[in-house]
Amino acid sequence: MSDARQAALDYHAKPIPGKLSIELTKPTATAKDLALAYSPGVAEPCREIARDPENAYRYTGKGNLVAVISDGSAILGLGNLGALASKPVMEGKGVLFKRFAGINSVDIEVNSESPQAFIDTVARIADTWGGINLEDIKAPECFEIEQALIEQCSIPVFHDDQHGTAIVTAAGMLNALEIAGKRLEDASIVCMGAGAAAIACMKLLVACGARAENLVMLDRKGVIHTGREDLNPYKAMFAVDTDKRTLDDAIDGADVFVGLSGPGLMSADHIRKMAPNPVVFACTNPDPEIHPDLAREVRPDVIMATGRSDYPNQVNNVLGFPFIFRGALDVRATRINEEMKVAAVHALKDLAREPVPQEVLDAYEKSEMSFGREYIIPTPVDVRLLERITSAVAQAAVDSGVARRPYPSHYPLKSVDDVYGV
Amino acid sequence: MSDARQAALDYHAKPIPGKLSIELTKPTATAKDLALAYSPGVAEPCREIARDPENAYRYTGKGNLVAVISDGSAILGLGNLGALASKPVMEGKGVLFKRFAGINSVDIEVNSESPQAFIDTVARIADTWGGINLEDIKAPECFEIEQALIEQCSIPVFHDDQHGTAIVTAAGMLNALEIAGKRLEDASIVCMGAGAAAIACMKLLVACGARAENLVMLDRKGVIHTGREDLNPYKAMFAVDTDKRTLDDAIDGADVFVGLSGPGLMSADHIRKMAPNPVVFACTNPDPEIHPDLAREVRPDVIMATGRSDYPNQVNNVLGFPFIFRGALDVRATRINEEMKVAAVHALKDLAREPVPQEVLDAYEKSEMSFGREYIIPTPVDVRLLERITSAVAQAAVDSGVARRPYPSHYPLKSVDDVYGV
Repeated sequence: MSDARQAALDYHAKPIPGKLSIELTKPTATAKDLALAYSPGVAEPCREIARDPENAYRYTGKGNLVAVISDGSAILGLGNLGALASKPVMEGKGVLFKRFAGINSVDIEVNSESPQAFIDTVARIADTWGGINLEDIKAPECFEIEQALIEQCSIPVFHDDQHGTAIVTAAGMLNALEIAGKRLEDASIVCMGAGAAAIACMKLLVACGARAENLVMLDRKGVIHTGREDLNPYKAMFAVDTDKRTLDDAIDGADVFVGLSGPGLMSADHIRKMAPNPVVFACTNPDPEIHPDLAREVRPDVIMATGRSDYPNQVNNVLGFPFIFRGALDVRATRINEEMKVAAVHALKDLAREPVPQEVLDAYEKSEMSFGREYIIPTPVDVRLLERITSAVAQAAVDSGVARRPYPSHYPLKSVDDVYGV
Repeated sequence: MSDARQAALDYHAKPIPGKLSIELTKPTATAKDLALAYSPGVAEPCREIARDPENAYRYTGKGNLVAVISDGSAILGLGNLGALASKPVMEGKGVLFKRFAGINSVDIEVNSESPQAFIDTVARIADTWGGINLEDIKAPECFEIEQALIEQCSIPVFHDDQHGTAIVTAAGMLNALEIAGKRLEDASIVCMGAGAAAIACMKLLVACGARAENLVMLDRKGVIHTGREDLNPYKAMFAVDTDKRTLDDAIDGADVFVGLSGPGLMSADHIRKMAPNPVVFACTNPDPEIHPDLAREVRPDVIMATGRSDYPNQVNNVLGFPFIFRGALDVRATRINEEMKVAAVHALKDLAREPVPQEVLDAYEKSEMSFGREYIIPTPVDVRLLERITSAVAQAAVDSGVARRPYPSHYPLKSVDDVYGV
């Protein structure tokens, strides 16, 4: 076994299995304490919640509790390994929720025989939490599942593989195009991949200003065009009337390539055919559609992002979901709508244009980092993310009418210790 | 609002809502840490679990994680207030699991339209946890739900309102009869109440040696006898061929009264008619079937237990469930069977006959407590519970063939810090 594999297994196994524990936040030393925590005292909050369900936010952990839920059908890049095998990822997501945004989260692995069974199951237990993060559910089922749960639940339901990826990609894309001297409205975009993340990315780019007619999406069979009869409704939304059939056809003169497909699918010849200052987001992990070293060798003018932490411009969902949920929870939003996603995009985009704090430089052992080809997206260690993204999302929720509470008086948040405003 | 009510609400609301939080158990300070906790490192435990589901116990929190699940249909003594209103109780149960046995637990509130919907929902998500504690589900639905989930799940499923209550009651009963100079095998028993707890108590007393023909159960309509045609199958098991119709008929000469029914349902006249050294377990909370002061006034020879912490001999479920689950989890039992329940009864019973440690005396501000009329059940503050009940349950699981691991080498447990054996 490699050292890296062994280190990952040891991390999860030792000294105790897993990564999370439940801890008590109230005194429990004495019989009097326990009479408040449990019977007979606990009857009082029960009665108050029965009287008004909103009181659950006051007397239980609901308001700061997100469920991370998967059926294990699309685990990372590993595919469908079954619900239980997704548990380390879901617990890992819980680690990130707590570490970056002070959010308590629990994982739920669902063995479901159909999308409807998954929907029914989650809908019945959704009241338990303040929000639901769907994770690692394969397309196209994930679209139906998310849509149904958004409609059936009164709390935010957010499939992070779709929207988290889309938000970070869109933020980086707007900055990359700025540096390339181009506008999203005019850019010709090729999207390699037509899964959950790809479709969400393209939808959000359109919401941010991209023109659908400038966009070519490819799946395993090639270009998604109006002549194809094998498309599900989600892909069909992106079908264009074109005689292009392959990546080789589509990439010719393109301004932007977004890869959410598979390793090595973009060749040197492909990138060579792109327009000047090509923007290449090769996001498949750990091996991208084209290696950044090769891309730069062939096209020194490339502006490139990947999913990798060992190269500049990492498209990393952790830049988004902890703060998006934090903002949504803090204003008790009923959903995470397009306005909130777009607000997160612009907050992320704007943050990358600001001077980089010393602590970020220190973390990356650099003397300088500034907005440019090598820095179009903030880094996960940037503590300003909590302040900026959370505020923007909360404000957008209030402005778009999905907030059930006013913009929090304790904002902006300066650290995770500040999350409750106490 | 009374001071007690306000104190209970404040406890739940301040300084942050609820009673539990999620904390990180592994390092997460650096990018390297996070690469182990999440992508890419997390892929390794996923693969290992896909290869062998047992590895979930090694690499995730599953093995020390119990779900506390309710539909809110029978919350404490409050009745059916709906799923969400049960959340403070379920979180409170989580407090007790952690406080007394070091078990992590999460609550799940299920809005279900039928017992089958509840069963389907829980069965689909059961792999998430190492065990399931069903709670506050009304009879008779709770019987069908528990039985189906025991059959469908490979982890222990335990309805504490039934079995936890039954185990503590049976332990106290054996001791009470010992003091009364009677044997369970000969005792005539009257059970007031025919709900989940009452039926489980009577079943467990029979498993411990009581004779079904010596047992009279009453529901709201009176004695459950073979002539009645309005009985569900669970009550029908206890129907006897008798011409007794009321508590007044049934209590005449009875050795034992068990009340799991409603406040004040036993009168002075009732207890006056019981046999010498009557054993009265009046367990309805907070107001028992007969007040202990009245019972003692009328029958100075009574041996009495209640659900109250302010009188001797409290029948308190916390004496059972944390340790029963601890033992079951530690040997990875597939279920909590009758052998394990009976082992818990005898461990509890035996512990009450041992000398009381100084710290227990201190907690109750007493100079003396010893086995007798005023002390037939151990107290919740007794740290020996963890050691004794857990060991007995684990051993019974091994002996009865439901354990998937050997008796733990780190047993007996001395404190909750010792629970992982590290």
